[in-house]
Amino acid sequence: MAMRSLVLLCITLVLVPVSLASRKWHFKWEVGYVYWSPDCRENIMIGINGRFPGPTIRAKAGDTIKVELKNGLPTEGVVIHWHGIRQFGTPWADGTASISQCAINPEETFIYEFKVEKPGTYFYHGHYGMQRAAGLYGSLIVDVADGQKEPFDYDGELNLLLSDWYHQNVQAQMLGLSSKPFRWIGEPQSLLINGRGQYNCSLAAHVIPGSSTCRSKRGECEPVVLRVLPNKTYRLRIASTTSLSSLNLAIGHHKMIVVEADGNYVEPFTVDDMDIYSGESYSILITTDQVPSSNYWLSVGVRGRLPQTQPALAILNYHPNSPSKLPASEPPVAPTWNDYAHSKSFSYKIHARRGTPKPPTNPVRQIALLNTQNKIDGFIKWSINNISLVLPSTPYLGSMRYRLRNAFDDRKPPENFARDYDIMKPPINPSAMQGSNAYKLEFNSTVDVILQNANALSGNVSEIHPWHLHGHDFWVLGYGDGRFSKKDVTKFNLKNPPLRNTVVIFPYGWTAIRFVADNPGVWAFHCHIEPHLHMGMGVVFAEGVKLIEKIPKEALACGMTGKTLMNNHLP
Amino acid sequence: MAMRSLVLLCITLVLVPVSLASRKWHFKWEVGYVYWSPDCRENIMIGINGRFPGPTIRAKAGDTIKVELKNGLPTEGVVIHWHGIRQFGTPWADGTASISQCAINPEETFIYEFKVEKPGTYFYHGHYGMQRAAGLYGSLIVDVADGQKEPFDYDGELNLLLSDWYHQNVQAQMLGLSSKPFRWIGEPQSLLINGRGQYNCSLAAHVIPGSSTCRSKRGECEPVVLRVLPNKTYRLRIASTTSLSSLNLAIGHHKMIVVEADGNYVEPFTVDDMDIYSGESYSILITTDQVPSSNYWLSVGVRGRLPQTQPALAILNYHPNSPSKLPASEPPVAPTWNDYAHSKSFSYKIHARRGTPKPPTNPVRQIALLNTQNKIDGFIKWSINNISLVLPSTPYLGSMRYRLRNAFDDRKPPENFARDYDIMKPPINPSAMQGSNAYKLEFNSTVDVILQNANALSGNVSEIHPWHLHGHDFWVLGYGDGRFSKKDVTKFNLKNPPLRNTVVIFPYGWTAIRFVADNPGVWAFHCHIEPHLHMGMGVVFAEGVKLIEKIPKEALACGMTGKTLMNNHLP
Repeated sequence: MAMRSLVLLCITLVLVPVSLASRKWHFKWEVGYVYWSPDCRENIMIGINGRFPGPTIRAKAGDTIKVELKNGLPTEGVVIHWHGIRQFGTPWADGTASISQCAINPEETFIYEFKVEKPGTYFYHGHYGMQRAAGLYGSLIVDVADGQKEPFDYDGELNLLLSDWYHQNVQAQMLGLSSKPFRWIGEPQSLLINGRGQYNCSLAAHVIPGSSTCRSKRGECEPVVLRVLPNKTYRLRIASTTSLSSLNLAIGHHKMIVVEADGNYVEPFTVDDMDIYSGESYSILITTDQVPSSNYWLSVGVRGRLPQTQPALAILNYHPNSPSKLPASEPPVAPTWNDYAHSKSFSYKIHARRGTPKPPTNPVRQIALLNTQNKIDGFIKWSINNISLVLPSTPYLGSMRYRLRNAFDDRKPPENFARDYDIMKPPINPSAMQGSNAYKLEFNSTVDVILQNANALSGNVSEIHPWHLHGHDFWVLGYGDGRFSKKDVTKFNLKNPPLRNTVVIFPYGWTAIRFVADNPGVWAFHCHIEPHLHMGMGVVFAEGVKLIEKIPKEALACGMTGKTLMNNHLP
Repeated sequence: MAMRSLVLLCITLVLVPVSLASRKWHFKWEVGYVYWSPDCRENIMIGINGRFPGPTIRAKAGDTIKVELKNGLPTEGVVIHWHGIRQFGTPWADGTASISQCAINPEETFIYEFKVEKPGTYFYHGHYGMQRAAGLYGSLIVDVADGQKEPFDYDGELNLLLSDWYHQNVQAQMLGLSSKPFRWIGEPQSLLINGRGQYNCSLAAHVIPGSSTCRSKRGECEPVVLRVLPNKTYRLRIASTTSLSSLNLAIGHHKMIVVEADGNYVEPFTVDDMDIYSGESYSILITTDQVPSSNYWLSVGVRGRLPQTQPALAILNYHPNSPSKLPASEPPVAPTWNDYAHSKSFSYKIHARRGTPKPPTNPVRQIALLNTQNKIDGFIKWSINNISLVLPSTPYLGSMRYRLRNAFDDRKPPENFARDYDIMKPPINPSAMQGSNAYKLEFNSTVDVILQNANALSGNVSEIHPWHLHGHDFWVLGYGDGRFSKKDVTKFNLKNPPLRNTVVIFPYGWTAIRFVADNPGVWAFHCHIEPHLHMGMGVVFAEGVKLIEKIPKEALACGMTGKTLMNNHLP
């Protein structure tokens, strides 16, 4: 009872004050395959209510979102994860197959119901197999509650959901990634802005009427036009749900002031271009103070991998110019893909806005997670401390809550890695194991995680990995090059570390985060690159599991929880 | 209790006498995607234990087959139907999703266990979505029990499982079929014999060493070679699990004596070529009495649709010729695709072998099923008496056994169709409804079904439909052209009607069948053409449902049975 009161207290403290005018939004969605031409080339995607991308949810802080999700796929299960929403009290609604719930069977309906307690720029996406990469995603925007104000002013708002797109279907992608010999998915065929891009098309052809046939019938690949009035300030909400690509965004001749990251306010800073990794979201302010007789390009290019994908373009269209008037100057060009100094410079500028809660001073536990590429029986995998994540058929939330035995490999995963591991070289012994990677955290404890990057299987290769934590925001305490050492703790930023739900590790570098395990549930923590997660790059954090109440039976109707419930053996 | 004894008695009577030496065969299979090149072009298929087609099961009458089936597909459910096996006492093992069981979730294992009580040529295949068309199939051959003899002699045996193959994945096929505007899947790219065919390849290239690169690395599209000794008699087992194509098979210069159809002996008859519709199986005897210095072509071509697919070829290889010695004469050519007189002539020759059980003289019920193509909200469907089958999310077997309300649309489907319906013309009012098409049959009653073909939506088009009944063999009482009339009953063959599990209706014709509803369960009866079933061409027969015992909970763990079991509301 004392514990339970404590939980309730904590939940209450964490909640942003809720207006009395909070509402409940009720959506009825059906997931299904759709023909779509996101880059002017027709393909099959996973859409919602017959469209791609899925509908934008817009609500106010304190509101409740209820989504009745019908699975209209003929043979595939489905779930939807509400990325950035912490799901206090509703861990079963986190939408991660094998972790928070059973996949929804074809023709069945599952009801997600949760509070959006914090204003910010969020999104949602599939979290089963690689269904996100098949197009199952959309925007989720939370405004400040009635009577509240954002800590910055703007005259208008625009929303950009960024993604990448492969012509190969995800079944084929998944098979290739789990085959011996390994078949890599390669670079995406196109980058998309709000689900629109162009593959082997001149964008000019789209904006100059009648000049090309490289269009889709229903305008599905028409370039995004951002209509603005001169001399106003606009908030651009930007989120990336790419499968693979790290991105850079710039707008010709316009400065950008970054004000929000992952649903948390940051101390405003001005840049010419910005990096966005998969799983991240930002708000920037721009002022339309340039020559108003011209339009301007917004350009999104690839970072961190040798680009083989054309940049995605949108048009910043000053009123009253025609949107088909091509900008006078060329689109901005992204920095060289491997200019990591540029990328780090951007990440290092992000600090919490004054008033942001500060991290507890001392963690009770530090977990170091070594990110390596390995081989298991000749199959290429990503591993964390030499264990590659394999998700169980019974979701952890149910098997842990009801203490089912043998539902997963419950050996304690390592807290650290070999002292003499040389992160600058390929693994000497690349052989790894598969496992369930479930870390049990003491409820309400403060935990530090050191994400340690390393060399991949090939020499001189270390990749970017954006790590995303479910159910929490964390403080980003610091970044560093090379191997993390104890001394680095002294350099941690405890003054104004930004709160995020996604953070990147740079090649051969480390990133340190801190969070409080204050949300009863089982939460994924993983690289947000879809093929990397599919190859095992993730762990699971379980906390306050005894305190979890009321898991809907529909979330448990598979695997061992399903069997146990059917045999009436659960309390 | 009296009823139950009766059931047991009936089951006992129907069983072929079982040798005391009956065995239990235990298989562990894992279904998963595989890269395969069935027609020399690499694609993704659904395989079993990493191979396509699935392993051949070989057992003796009276044996028990136990298959531990693990679903290794990352996001798709799966089931396997044991085509032709009647599943007395094990209706939950029939392997039809939404009818006999819940689809097996990814990473979960379901145990099929059933008796094969009757010798014959059978096969198994996926029965969820269009997974059969994705390659999920294999042979199941049941020999006579120890001490028993087949009623014909032969020196050796060869097995041919025929299928067709599309390069487009089945997700895309399913989407096209359920889209508005409708997108037809077209004709298959290739025909396969034992999973091997050639697309845009010269077969000669395969048999003459070093003459072509149109091969797969692992010999997956090497032509099938049937090695025979001169002057011997061989039994060829032939089954078709095509998605779309009706087939014709011939062997150059060799007569064929048909002796078995769908696991039932038929009165032997001799032909030069034979038709095989999807869902059918046959045994034929050939004698290798031709010039032994030559090899001979076995050729499989398309019937009933304008062929756009190359015939599949195999080589009858007389010992000691090299298998790469090309036959001296050209491959046999299939009869003109629309020479229905030829096809009917073959079907009409099939009679039961003496000793086959005869049908009861009088049915208690006659159900007429009109097969039409219709539109529902502009979507093209196939309908039975104007109702297009939509499968429920809760399998009928569970919802009927436990009398759950609202698990499906339980309105009684029509027993007949309009007296003035003109089958020679496209439907005047093409609008149809969707429904559950569940016919409840009195246990142990004798039922006649008249399958009535008609004109499709386009003028002058009526297609072949091979109808397959689960859980039973039926007697084929007769065929006729035009609309069935009461007078036709007098022409029924009650003397030696063949027992089958699959029978064809010819364009603009009818076919009459009779069976005894003596197998407690819920059984699909449907057109075996995969896209037609997907478009609604089927019904369900429920009989003796109260007598069904012991459905494994794993077969019920979805939909309303899953929920009800989890809420402890089932007896």
